[in-house]
Amino acid sequence: MSTSPLESQARLVKAASREVSTASSATRDAFLRVAADQLEAQSDKLLEANAGDLHDHAASLTSAAADRLRLTAERISSMAEGLRKIAALPDPVGEIVDGWRRPNGIEVSRVRVPLGVIGIVYENRPNVTSDAAGLCIKAGNAVFLRGSSTAQRSNVAIVAVLQASLETVGLPRDAVSLVEDSSHETAAEFMGLRGYLDCLIPRGGPSLIASMRAHATVPYILDGDGNCHTYVDRAADLEQALDIIENAKVQRPGVCNATETLLVHRGVAAQFLPAVDTRLASVELRGCPETVSLVPRASAATTDDWATEFSDLILAIRVVTDLDEAMEHIRQYSTGHTEAILTEDLAAASTFCRTVDAAAVVVNASTRFVDGEELGLGAEIGISTQKLHARGPMGLRELTTAKWILRGEGQVRT
Amino acid sequence: MSTSPLESQARLVKAASREVSTASSATRDAFLRVAADQLEAQSDKLLEANAGDLHDHAASLTSAAADRLRLTAERISSMAEGLRKIAALPDPVGEIVDGWRRPNGIEVSRVRVPLGVIGIVYENRPNVTSDAAGLCIKAGNAVFLRGSSTAQRSNVAIVAVLQASLETVGLPRDAVSLVEDSSHETAAEFMGLRGYLDCLIPRGGPSLIASMRAHATVPYILDGDGNCHTYVDRAADLEQALDIIENAKVQRPGVCNATETLLVHRGVAAQFLPAVDTRLASVELRGCPETVSLVPRASAATTDDWATEFSDLILAIRVVTDLDEAMEHIRQYSTGHTEAILTEDLAAASTFCRTVDAAAVVVNASTRFVDGEELGLGAEIGISTQKLHARGPMGLRELTTAKWILRGEGQVRT
Repeated sequence: MSTSPLESQARLVKAASREVSTASSATRDAFLRVAADQLEAQSDKLLEANAGDLHDHAASLTSAAADRLRLTAERISSMAEGLRKIAALPDPVGEIVDGWRRPNGIEVSRVRVPLGVIGIVYENRPNVTSDAAGLCIKAGNAVFLRGSSTAQRSNVAIVAVLQASLETVGLPRDAVSLVEDSSHETAAEFMGLRGYLDCLIPRGGPSLIASMRAHATVPYILDGDGNCHTYVDRAADLEQALDIIENAKVQRPGVCNATETLLVHRGVAAQFLPAVDTRLASVELRGCPETVSLVPRASAATTDDWATEFSDLILAIRVVTDLDEAMEHIRQYSTGHTEAILTEDLAAASTFCRTVDAAAVVVNASTRFVDGEELGLGAEIGISTQKLHARGPMGLRELTTAKWILRGEGQVRT
Repeated sequence: MSTSPLESQARLVKAASREVSTASSATRDAFLRVAADQLEAQSDKLLEANAGDLHDHAASLTSAAADRLRLTAERISSMAEGLRKIAALPDPVGEIVDGWRRPNGIEVSRVRVPLGVIGIVYENRPNVTSDAAGLCIKAGNAVFLRGSSTAQRSNVAIVAVLQASLETVGLPRDAVSLVEDSSHETAAEFMGLRGYLDCLIPRGGPSLIASMRAHATVPYILDGDGNCHTYVDRAADLEQALDIIENAKVQRPGVCNATETLLVHRGVAAQFLPAVDTRLASVELRGCPETVSLVPRASAATTDDWATEFSDLILAIRVVTDLDEAMEHIRQYSTGHTEAILTEDLAAASTFCRTVDAAAVVVNASTRFVDGEELGLGAEIGISTQKLHARGPMGLRELTTAKWILRGEGQVRT
């Protein structure tokens, strides 16, 4: 059987992962600091490569896509700062998860160890190349990157800097590798590199996720959609609720933890919704019939609106009879990312926290707080909306697995 | 779009899972105790159904398969005892995994919550029906069972007892459901019940695992093969090593944590292997050329032998130059289950523990200790050889996920 170029490359990454997994924290952190300095020192080369990408794909890129792809001196500095911040975080590798002594004297412990090789499939943001590589190496893994073909020159230039930095600190250069052929044809093969990749993390939209479900034989962690709800209970502090809903919708509407649907208890709707109308003047409102009667500028919401992550200055609004109806609406339309309740009623808050099935449940705060940085993880590789392995914001620990260690003195089983 | 019978059934299980997830520990434990009593009280019905299975499939069952399928009064009692033991374990649901307060005052915690619906695909041991159902309900989940068609009557009878017991304690009967059509055709459909099943756990051999990889769109946890090695270092206590290797091979050769290959440091091979020959008189030996020259009754091992989980009284033996060669052999042939080193040399033990990539690494004890019961988990649903979510023996905690809870006082993000 002949080995494909992709598989040959994967074999080198796998071999490199063994060296990284036993390298000291100090060595891995040194890599991150050297790489940060080198990204800044070589920013001219990176900008030149990036200009090439922008030029080659000028015809096919929307202005938003071109903006995501574009590197600037400032963006390169922020990539470098990202690596320095990762270097300063505690090492997850070697942490004892738990442990005890058995009646027969065997000492049992579970120790956090690297996963091995992490495959990242992403779109055209070149900063993901250094961010993901930094997090993976910090957690003792090698990383195999498959970026978008539109960002290929930029990615090649960034990976060259990272590989040179690995060599500077005595780590194998293949520990950060980029798929050379970023054509569509290699995507399915990449997702099927079982035995080489220990975990796949897709960073991208619905079509990437669908392709993952269809082709991946490697276990993956989905960084999914966020159709997030904020429910304003009858017992909410309405002034506070106004601040929170404004923040949750307007502060950065394009991200996954922004609120997309506002649910309002009928008992406070007549008072609260006109205030929402005024405060969210910049936001397009789509409401249930009761909302429309209270806020005439709102258009009639369709079923699709309840199910849509707008990622834009659009808010769906529905008036509900009570907490149960709010939770039922959430059950039906939630993508399992983040759901919030605003209330002064302890029982309502407890019921909501216990019942709602989502990665994160928020009481009396903006849904926007659900990300790795805000929750104190230090850095984040994504936000998982699946239930296995990692749920919610994923930091360094989620890039590791555990190993059982049994220390005996000759015990045999009877 | 029409809904298939399987999907209609799955929808009922999903609805039931919501009730189980918020039921109290006391209610779930009451179910386990009632079910234990009822299994014993109705053992005549179970034995009759089982006799029907044995009769219907008499022509196609090997004697080993018939033995696995057969229920006896004693086996039913042991199923009941299993449920009582599960009831006595601590509830994993509601456990606070970790938590802290953020500088802005938001209180963050991660709480263990049920996964939802767990799908179990298994072969013809009827005891798996009650064991798996007991563990899943204890951890607050509903369970959707797909057994073998050869055990269908037995499974139907056991599930009837479990469902009646659920109703007795006020839980929905659909929380333990059995796929009615256990033909091969429904297997792929079952593995594709995304949106209904939150996790799949296969309990079976290589063909089931292969089918899982091909058809499952639901995330799954593999209970994989165990090609386990024991390495006898130059610095091993050879008397102790003899006891351990005998235990690891002979005590129960058919299980996944039995040792399949013995690796022996060249420095002690001439002394140790003749003693192995004598002590393991009941075991067929297959060795490398050096082994064969020291133990003439050993046949020559093939590459296949190194890669085979014999699950039988057969031991492959290879003499190695040093620890590195032992670890390299393990790297090449390990299935990532359990690997052991026998040595008095602290540095060798440390290097082995750090370097070997397996769910469990054992120092100076039998590989047979790697199971949930022996490690103190109280019960086990399987032993995972994958790295995500669960690695090694899986107890109740591995049947849960976590939910982030954020408690604020009006915080907004700036």
